[in-house]
Amino acid sequence: MADSSVSGTGLLPGLREIDDVGRDTSRGASRTGLRGGYRRHLFDDAELDLRAWFIARASAAGLAVETDRNANLWAWWGAPGPNAVVTGSHLDSVPGGGAYDGPLGVVSALDAVAALRAAGFVPSRPFAVVVFAEEEGSRFGVACLGSRLMTGQLEPERARSLLDPEGVSLAEAGSRVGFDVANLGHDPEALARIGLFIELHVEQGRALIDLGAPVAVASSILAHGRWRLTFTGEADHAGTTLMQGRRDPVVAASRAIVALRDIAVSRAAQDARATVGRSSWASGGTNVIAAEASVWLDARAATDADTHALVAEIVEASTAAATLEGCELDVAEESWSGAVRFDVGLREGFAAALGDVPRLSTGAGHDAGVLAGVVPTAMLFVRNPTGISHAPEEFAELADTLAGVDALTSILRSLL
Amino acid sequence: MADSSVSGTGLLPGLREIDDVGRDTSRGASRTGLRGGYRRHLFDDAELDLRAWFIARASAAGLAVETDRNANLWAWWGAPGPNAVVTGSHLDSVPGGGAYDGPLGVVSALDAVAALRAAGFVPSRPFAVVVFAEEEGSRFGVACLGSRLMTGQLEPERARSLLDPEGVSLAEAGSRVGFDVANLGHDPEALARIGLFIELHVEQGRALIDLGAPVAVASSILAHGRWRLTFTGEADHAGTTLMQGRRDPVVAASRAIVALRDIAVSRAAQDARATVGRSSWASGGTNVIAAEASVWLDARAATDADTHALVAEIVEASTAAATLEGCELDVAEESWSGAVRFDVGLREGFAAALGDVPRLSTGAGHDAGVLAGVVPTAMLFVRNPTGISHAPEEFAELADTLAGVDALTSILRSLL
Repeated sequence: MADSSVSGTGLLPGLREIDDVGRDTSRGASRTGLRGGYRRHLFDDAELDLRAWFIARASAAGLAVETDRNANLWAWWGAPGPNAVVTGSHLDSVPGGGAYDGPLGVVSALDAVAALRAAGFVPSRPFAVVVFAEEEGSRFGVACLGSRLMTGQLEPERARSLLDPEGVSLAEAGSRVGFDVANLGHDPEALARIGLFIELHVEQGRALIDLGAPVAVASSILAHGRWRLTFTGEADHAGTTLMQGRRDPVVAASRAIVALRDIAVSRAAQDARATVGRSSWASGGTNVIAAEASVWLDARAATDADTHALVAEIVEASTAAATLEGCELDVAEESWSGAVRFDVGLREGFAAALGDVPRLSTGAGHDAGVLAGVVPTAMLFVRNPTGISHAPEEFAELADTLAGVDALTSILRSLL
Repeated sequence: MADSSVSGTGLLPGLREIDDVGRDTSRGASRTGLRGGYRRHLFDDAELDLRAWFIARASAAGLAVETDRNANLWAWWGAPGPNAVVTGSHLDSVPGGGAYDGPLGVVSALDAVAALRAAGFVPSRPFAVVVFAEEEGSRFGVACLGSRLMTGQLEPERARSLLDPEGVSLAEAGSRVGFDVANLGHDPEALARIGLFIELHVEQGRALIDLGAPVAVASSILAHGRWRLTFTGEADHAGTTLMQGRRDPVVAASRAIVALRDIAVSRAAQDARATVGRSSWASGGTNVIAAEASVWLDARAATDADTHALVAEIVEASTAAATLEGCELDVAEESWSGAVRFDVGLREGFAAALGDVPRLSTGAGHDAGVLAGVVPTAMLFVRNPTGISHAPEEFAELADTLAGVDALTSILRSLL
């Protein structure tokens, strides 16, 4: 696939095909206008368009596409499993997300298939390209929804009752688009077909810039999870209510946000990160003391124990913040992913085969991290010259994405 | 109108008629489900229903209803102005607001008309019941929109370009419902008809509970305004971005919110209040560092100078918070209302005529405060046994609301 004549700009053709799908045209808070990037969330119009695009693209490549019980898409080259080589990623985005996080892995997999076909290659074992549903968790709050359901790490009852920001349940959202949610859940048949899984992904940090390498293999993923912190106070008039005696949950939540940042900084030695990027306040009027303020905590650290300790300290500080403002605090864990070490044999074999490319740890969760507990799993990272992800500035040079496709193709050739 | 047989519960019939209009069925952040209260915002379905209700109710009472250039409704008993006695309030609410703030003044005015008619009374000077548009500013961000436009305190160009939280401009919202926004603005003809204005309103604090009185007249309103503080940082991945070097506008905004609360507390001697009840974050994903966080500051104090000093100190602290997090801060004043002293002659005359009822200062803005700079203006307050306002718990006993209608009726009789 690599074409030495390509310049450093431009998109893989597959990415160009979906470049206009789900552009985020919402206004942010911004005086500067549009937020930019993409909005591609499970079962919304953009995500349905991407599903249709994938089915058409894979079918045209001679792959047989099926949707599994958990809304994941599988495109099989020949008969399905067992002991299949599976590669792929996801097509959904965070709100205002970039063009590469997810789609690069799907497009690279399809391009690798095309390269193998062009070379007259015929696999000697089952092979599939997979697209996992709602990896970002941006609509229903649980990241890696499709892979968690498939591996039995999320109860189908809980999944069906998850609500999007508009209060629409996953069950309702599925039925609106004709997807039967009755069969959600642990899918041993689908898992039994997977011999190993490889996910190619754009890098979401700056390591490959510093290392001067276009491609790396993954070594591990930080433990991480999401917690919803709901501070409850008392709604009242912003003008007539004295400062003394207020029970303002926005002040309590703000104290907690400042504290959790400082707590994560103090735990830098454990690779701790703590972020609040989403909130919901009731009532939400300018001249109203809010009744309730929910904020979503994203917390990560090197080990499971480090992460639990980080969250415990944050909850303690948040409880103190709530008490100081006369508010109540409710903490709900929305998702949890233990630290992941990818299969050492695959990692070292691939790294060597690709010319001793770097091994990278990452702070980002992936479907590959969910599958790593069940099947041998590996990841490839492609350099991101901005180091930025989950934002419109996320990027990969065309030459680097072609290097990624080459790396994936050569690995698949050696496995198939 | 007062019926000594009524119990302490129940609603004035007029309030009962609109009790189901615009119930807030949105989910808050809440695990507890619905927020409750009302959503009645300019030109939304509920507010249009209330306009239709008012027109029907006033017409049935023999009043001639007209909509002015600024979407305010006027119901005239006989020929319009000059030197008219005008009373009324507003029908819109904050999100999750109570049943009384606004509608009580409108319903009481209609009930006073009914009482005067029942007594065979015929006014000897022009009289109107008025409903001002968007008093709360909950859709387009500027409180007392209709009265500010009418009095020339808000430029029509700026009003037309105001955006609601969904990015719909006032101009667009008006045209969607067939209201011509081309004629918005200073309306000297409408103002010239007003001889004096009286607004009856539910109390939004606890003074009348402590004083043991059902009704008071207003003495003054705190200076107050709204400022939008927009912190701009850099969107990035919550998991892969180290804590060091982040430019997180949510942390900056949170530091500012904690600081502004403390600043207002330290200025209690100037009756200072500072509240953040509304926010908008871009991007808004759980696993994303936001690009931008806007918060709306509601600040009030006894005098104009006190309020300006309060806001200056808050802006200084917010700038420091932004700098600390590597963010930029933009401050935009969205509205300003200087301190108001109501007409002393009206106030003392009404207070004496009603049996030496209390005189109350208030921290809440009102259309009466806007008009006070242009025409002789007075307010009546009706006791609120919860002391809570801008929330579903806002309340007035039926007996107290009937006392309010009686007070308004007797004042109108003396004036007309």
